[in-house]
Amino acid sequence: MNSQKARPLGVAMIGYAFMGKAHSNAWRNVASFFDVPAFEQKVLVGRDAAGVAEAAGKYGWTETSTDWRTVIERDDIDIVDICAPGWLHAKIAIAALEAGKHVRLKKETAGSGALGDIASHAIDQVLFLLGDQVTEVSGRTHTFTTHRPGAAGQEEVTVDDAAWATLTLASGAIASVEVSRVATGQKNSLKLEIYGDKGAILFDLENLNELGFLDATGPAREQGFRRILVSEPEHPYVDAWWPQGHIIGWEHTFTHEIRDFLTAISTGTPPSPSFEDGLTVQRILNAIEESAAAKSSIIQLASAPAGTPTALTAASEGA
Amino acid sequence: MNSQKARPLGVAMIGYAFMGKAHSNAWRNVASFFDVPAFEQKVLVGRDAAGVAEAAGKYGWTETSTDWRTVIERDDIDIVDICAPGWLHAKIAIAALEAGKHVRLKKETAGSGALGDIASHAIDQVLFLLGDQVTEVSGRTHTFTTHRPGAAGQEEVTVDDAAWATLTLASGAIASVEVSRVATGQKNSLKLEIYGDKGAILFDLENLNELGFLDATGPAREQGFRRILVSEPEHPYVDAWWPQGHIIGWEHTFTHEIRDFLTAISTGTPPSPSFEDGLTVQRILNAIEESAAAKSSIIQLASAPAGTPTALTAASEGA
Amino acid sequence: MNSQKARPLGVAMIGYAFMGKAHSNAWRNVASFFDVPAFEQKVLVGRDAAGVAEAAGKYGWTETSTDWRTVIERDDIDIVDICAPGWLHAKIAIAALEAGKHVRLKKETAGSGALGDIASHAIDQVLFLLGDQVTEVSGRTHTFTTHRPGAAGQEEVTVDDAAWATLTLASGAIASVEVSRVATGQKNSLKLEIYGDKGAILFDLENLNELGFLDATGPAREQGFRRILVSEPEHPYVDAWWPQGHIIGWEHTFTHEIRDFLTAISTGTPPSPSFEDGLTVQRILNAIEESAAAKSSIIQLASAPAGTPTALTAASEGA
Amino acid sequence: MNSQKARPLGVAMIGYAFMGKAHSNAWRNVASFFDVPAFEQKVLVGRDAAGVAEAAGKYGWTETSTDWRTVIERDDIDIVDICAPGWLHAKIAIAALEAGKHVRLKKETAGSGALGDIASHAIDQVLFLLGDQVTEVSGRTHTFTTHRPGAAGQEEVTVDDAAWATLTLASGAIASVEVSRVATGQKNSLKLEIYGDKGAILFDLENLNELGFLDATGPAREQGFRRILVSEPEHPYVDAWWPQGHIIGWEHTFTHEIRDFLTAISTGTPPSPSFEDGLTVQRILNAIEESAAAKSSIIQLASAPAGTPTALTAASEGA
Repeated sequence: MNSQKARPLGVAMIGYAFMGKAHSNAWRNVASFFDVPAFEQKVLVGRDAAGVAEAAGKYGWTETSTDWRTVIERDDIDIVDICAPGWLHAKIAIAALEAGKHVRLKKETAGSGALGDIASHAIDQVLFLLGDQVTEVSGRTHTFTTHRPGAAGQEEVTVDDAAWATLTLASGAIASVEVSRVATGQKNSLKLEIYGDKGAILFDLENLNELGFLDATGPAREQGFRRILVSEPEHPYVDAWWPQGHIIGWEHTFTHEIRDFLTAISTGTPPSPSFEDGLTVQRILNAIEESAAAKSSIIQLASAPAGTPTALTAASEGA
Repeated sequence: MNSQKARPLGVAMIGYAFMGKAHSNAWRNVASFFDVPAFEQKVLVGRDAAGVAEAAGKYGWTETSTDWRTVIERDDIDIVDICAPGWLHAKIAIAALEAGKHVRLKKETAGSGALGDIASHAIDQVLFLLGDQVTEVSGRTHTFTTHRPGAAGQEEVTVDDAAWATLTLASGAIASVEVSRVATGQKNSLKLEIYGDKGAILFDLENLNELGFLDATGPAREQGFRRILVSEPEHPYVDAWWPQGHIIGWEHTFTHEIRDFLTAISTGTPPSPSFEDGLTVQRILNAIEESAAAKSSIIQLASAPAGTPTALTAASEGA
Repeated sequence: MNSQKARPLGVAMIGYAFMGKAHSNAWRNVASFFDVPAFEQKVLVGRDAAGVAEAAGKYGWTETSTDWRTVIERDDIDIVDICAPGWLHAKIAIAALEAGKHVRLKKETAGSGALGDIASHAIDQVLFLLGDQVTEVSGRTHTFTTHRPGAAGQEEVTVDDAAWATLTLASGAIASVEVSRVATGQKNSLKLEIYGDKGAILFDLENLNELGFLDATGPAREQGFRRILVSEPEHPYVDAWWPQGHIIGWEHTFTHEIRDFLTAISTGTPPSPSFEDGLTVQRILNAIEESAAAKSSIIQLASAPAGTPTALTAASEGA
Repeated sequence: MNSQKARPLGVAMIGYAFMGKAHSNAWRNVASFFDVPAFEQKVLVGRDAAGVAEAAGKYGWTETSTDWRTVIERDDIDIVDICAPGWLHAKIAIAALEAGKHVRLKKETAGSGALGDIASHAIDQVLFLLGDQVTEVSGRTHTFTTHRPGAAGQEEVTVDDAAWATLTLASGAIASVEVSRVATGQKNSLKLEIYGDKGAILFDLENLNELGFLDATGPAREQGFRRILVSEPEHPYVDAWWPQGHIIGWEHTFTHEIRDFLTAISTGTPPSPSFEDGLTVQRILNAIEESAAAKSSIIQLASAPAGTPTALTAASEGA
C-alpha cells in the first residue's frame, strides 16, 4: 500500500539497546548500498526520556517519544521496528498490526533460556535452508549454572542454559540441534552442517563471510570441503558492498533484512520471514519443551494445513 | 605372571583382514620404538590356508594355522589377539581366557550398525577422558539407506546407519553423541568437544596429531582455541617416535595399545581398557537401543558397584 | 585548533568511487559508535555533477561540488578527505594543506603496480606493528600478465603484478615481503607472520576479526597457535560495536581510522599514520624498485634523523 | 641386474640415528604393504659396536659391522642405504657406486645451515612437482642465533639459520623460497603454495595427509580452497594402507621411497630422484650462496644440456 504514497515511508523504532543499536545501523545505511523505497528514520521510542534522546542523536532518529501507543497510531508512521524486550514484544506487535502498520523486525529476547534464545535461530535456519517441515521432536533441556549472583544474594536460575533435540523432517531428514550458553570458548558460534547425498554444506556465524562446501558428484580423489569466501559479485547481496575479499560484518545481516523488508513492502509481496514462520518455530520449541518434560519422549507436531491463517494470539503466547 | 618366564611371550593372532593388518603392523614395530617385554609373532590363524600363509609372510608371523582352538591351547602361546569378525569374537575370547591366555585386543566389528561400530568408540573415549560414568540415556537410531544391492537384487538394510543420544554422566555433565555412516564428506571423522568451566578441548581423528585446546583461566583478550601439534618429546608416547613436527599415522595408536598391553602384562597390572570397560560401553549401547525403541524416552542405567566382578558371559552377549 | 571552535567540524570529501564509498560509510557511522568531536558531512566533490549528486544523496553528504579548489578554500571546511585517484592526490593534498586544512585520509591508488598497491600496505603494517625502521632492501618485480585487452586491442601492461623483497630492519629482524595480483584463489589476502623469540603472531585480512597467536613462554607441551576472535570488550575499539562473537566488517577499519583522526584533531596530537609515515613507506618502495632494476642488489636506505621535518614536496613526488 | 638373481636383494644400512631409524622402519614394513622384490635387511653399520648391535636388534637387521668399507664390498650386499652424517655421505657413496651397488637413499644432513637442510627439500619439491628448471637466483642468508652454548662456553655459530631466495624458472614461473630454523611455533612446517592460471595447490608437511586445492575453472561463486584428505584408494600409494580417513605418518614417505627404489631396481629403470636430481638442487643452493655473498645480486645458472652425464665428483663436492 505504501508504494502508492508519494511521501517516504515513516519508520518508528521501539527500544534502543543491543538490537535497537544494530537495527538503527541497518536503517541508517541500507539506502547507501541498496536501491530501496524512500523512508525516514522518524521516531525512536524508549521509556527513559534522556536515554532515548541521546540514542536518537547517535543512531540517526529525528524525534523521540516515551509513549509507543501514541507513536504507532500516528498517520506518518508506516513501519514499526520492535526492538523492545521479548515480554513487551507481543503486546506492541498486536497494537501496531491493529493500527495497520508493518511489523516483522527482530525482537530482543531477554530472560529466555538457551532453547528460546539460541535454538530458535538454529531451527529457523534449518527450515529456511531446507524448505522443510518438522513432524516430530525429542528434546532435552538442562540448567548447568543453577545459581547466579542477584540482588538477594545467590538467586536460582529458572531457565535452561543448554538444550538438545532431534527433529524429524517431512522430507525424511533428521536434524540434530544442540545449543549451550556454557560452552567455554564458543563466543557466538552458530554452526550448521547439512549433509545430502550429492554434497554437504558447513556454516559458522563466527565466520559468516565463509561457506564450507563439498561437492560429492565429482571424482572421490578431488573431493574435500572447500572454504568459499562469499565476497564475489555473483554472491547474493554482496555486489552492493565491496570488491572481492573484503568481508562484511555481522550487523550487515540486518541491512539485508531491512532491504528485503522494504522491497517486500514496495512490491506488495509478503515479507519473509513472516509471522507464520515465527509461529512455526515457536511451536517446535514448545514441542521440545514438552518432550523434555516427558523424559525426552518423541512428540508429534500437528502440522498446520498450508495457508491456514494463524491466530496472532498463538504467536504472542510463545514470544 | 609371564614376567617370570625366561622365554619371550608367544603371540597368536586370529584374523588377518583390516584389523589383523593393522595389529600385525603394531606387533611388528612396537619393539623398535618402545621398551617392551620380549615377544614373538608366532602364529597367524585364519580359515583359508593359502590366504593365511600369504598374510603371515607379509605381516611377519612365523607359523600359520586354520584351527584357532588348537592354537589357543598351545603352551607356547601366551597372548591371543582376536581380530576376527565380531560375531566370532566372544566365543574365541571365552575359550582363550579359559585356557589362561591374555586377550582384549580390538575386534573387527562387521555387520553392526553405526551405533555399535562408531558410537561405541565415541562413548569409550568420553568415559576414558572424563573418568566418568553414565547414569541415564536418551537415544534415537535411524536407517537412511534402507536398501543396498545384494545377491538377490536390492536387499533391505537391517541395521541403523545413524544414531543420536544424550548421556547423563554421574559428574553432572551431559554428553551428546551423534554418529552417521552417511555424512557425506566425513571420511573417518571422530570429533570430540569437551567443555569445562576452566577450558575446552577439541579432537578429530582425521587430524589425530593435533589437539585443540582453550585455556579459559587467562585474560579474555588472549583466549582462543590453539592447535597443539602433539609431537613434542613431552607428549605421551611421542618421544619414542620422531623429532617434533613429524606426525605419526593412525596405525600407531595400535602400537601404543600393544605397548601398554605388554607393559601391563610384564608389571602384573590389569590392562586398560579392560573387559569391564568394554562391558560398560556395551551396556550403554544397549540402553540407547532400548530408549530408541521406546520413543527416545530416558532410560536409567543400573550402575554396577565399583569393583564388582563382571561375568564374562555378560560381555559375550554384548559383543 | 578545531577543538576551540563552537561549530561542528566541516568535512569535505573528494572522490566517490570505491574508497569514497568506504570512507563515506565511516563518516556516516563513526559518531554512532564512538565518542568523537562533532562534525558535519558537508560537501562531496567529483568531476561529474550528476554522478556526484547521486552519490551525495546515497552516502549522506549535504552539498556537492565539481570544483575541489573552491571547496578546500571554504572557511567552513576543516577536513578534506581525499579519495581521488592517486595521480591527483598529491596536488590536492598540497593545496589543502596550504589552505590550513587537515588531510591524511587514504587515497584510492589506481594505475600502480602490485608493489605500490599491495606491498605498501604490507610494509606499513610491519613498521607500525614492530615500531621499526628499514635500513636496506633487496627487491624483485615481475609482470606475469604482459598484455590486457584495451581500446586498441591487446595492450601492453606497463606495471608489475608481483613483487618480492627482503627488508633489513634496524632491530636486527628481517622482513620478507611477497605480493601478487595473480595468486589464483587469493581474493584479498594480506597475511602477516611475525616470529619473535617469545612468541609469534599471524594475521590475515580475509579473516580480519581473528588473530593467530602463539605464546612460546609456557611449557612446550601446551604451545600451539591459537585463534583469538577479536570481539571481546577488552580488545581495542571492539567494545564500541557488538557483544562478543559478533564480527565486524572490513569497512569498519575506516571508521576506526576516522575516529582516531578526529580524536587527534580534538586533542591537538599529530594524527597517525602521518605524512611522514607515508613518505617512509614510499622511500622503501622506491628502494625496492631501485634494487629490482639493479639485479636485486641490496640497496641502503639513508635513514632520516628522527624528528627531521620532512619536505612535503618529497611526499608528493612519491604519492 | 638384481632382478635376474634368484636370491633376495641384500641390504646394508650405514648409520642408525634419526634417519637410520626412519629408514629401518621403512625397510621393515615396505613388503607388508607393497608388492616389492624380495630383499633382506642384512647388515647395519655403525662406529660403535655396542650401539650398532642394540640398534640392529631393535630395527630388524640381522648382522652388524663397524667397517663400512668391508660391507660394501660383500657380494651378498646389493643395496647400500647411507644414513650417515652428511660429511661422510659422499665418500661412502662413491665407494659403494664403485663397488657396483645401488645407492640414493637420503642422507642425514648435520652441521649444515637452513639453506642446505631445509631449502634443499623445498627446492627439490618445486622442481619435482613442476617438472621445471631454475635459470637464475637471487638469495640471502642470515644467522639470527649467532652464539650457542658449546664445550668452550658460548661458541660462534658458523652456519645460516634462515635464508630467502627467488628462483626464475624456465617455464616463466618465479619461485620464492623462505626457510628458517628460528620461526617460533613452526615445528616442522614445510609449506608449498603453487599458483597457476587454472588453479592453485597448497601443502604443509605438518598435515601431510591433506592437500589444499582450488579449481579456478568453475564459476567464481563456487571457488574456494578445498581440503582433500588424501586417503582414498584412488590416491597414489594410499590403497596399500588403510581405509579412507585413516591417516598415515611422516615415516611412511620413506616406505614409499623404498618401494619406488626397489621397483626401479627390479624393472631396470633409473630410480627417481636420481643423483643428477640431487646435483641440480645442490647447484641451485650454491648459486643462492653465491648471490647472498654478492649482495643478493641475481646469478645465472649454466643449464646442463639434457642427458649430459654428470660427474660424480661434482655431486660429492656439494654433499
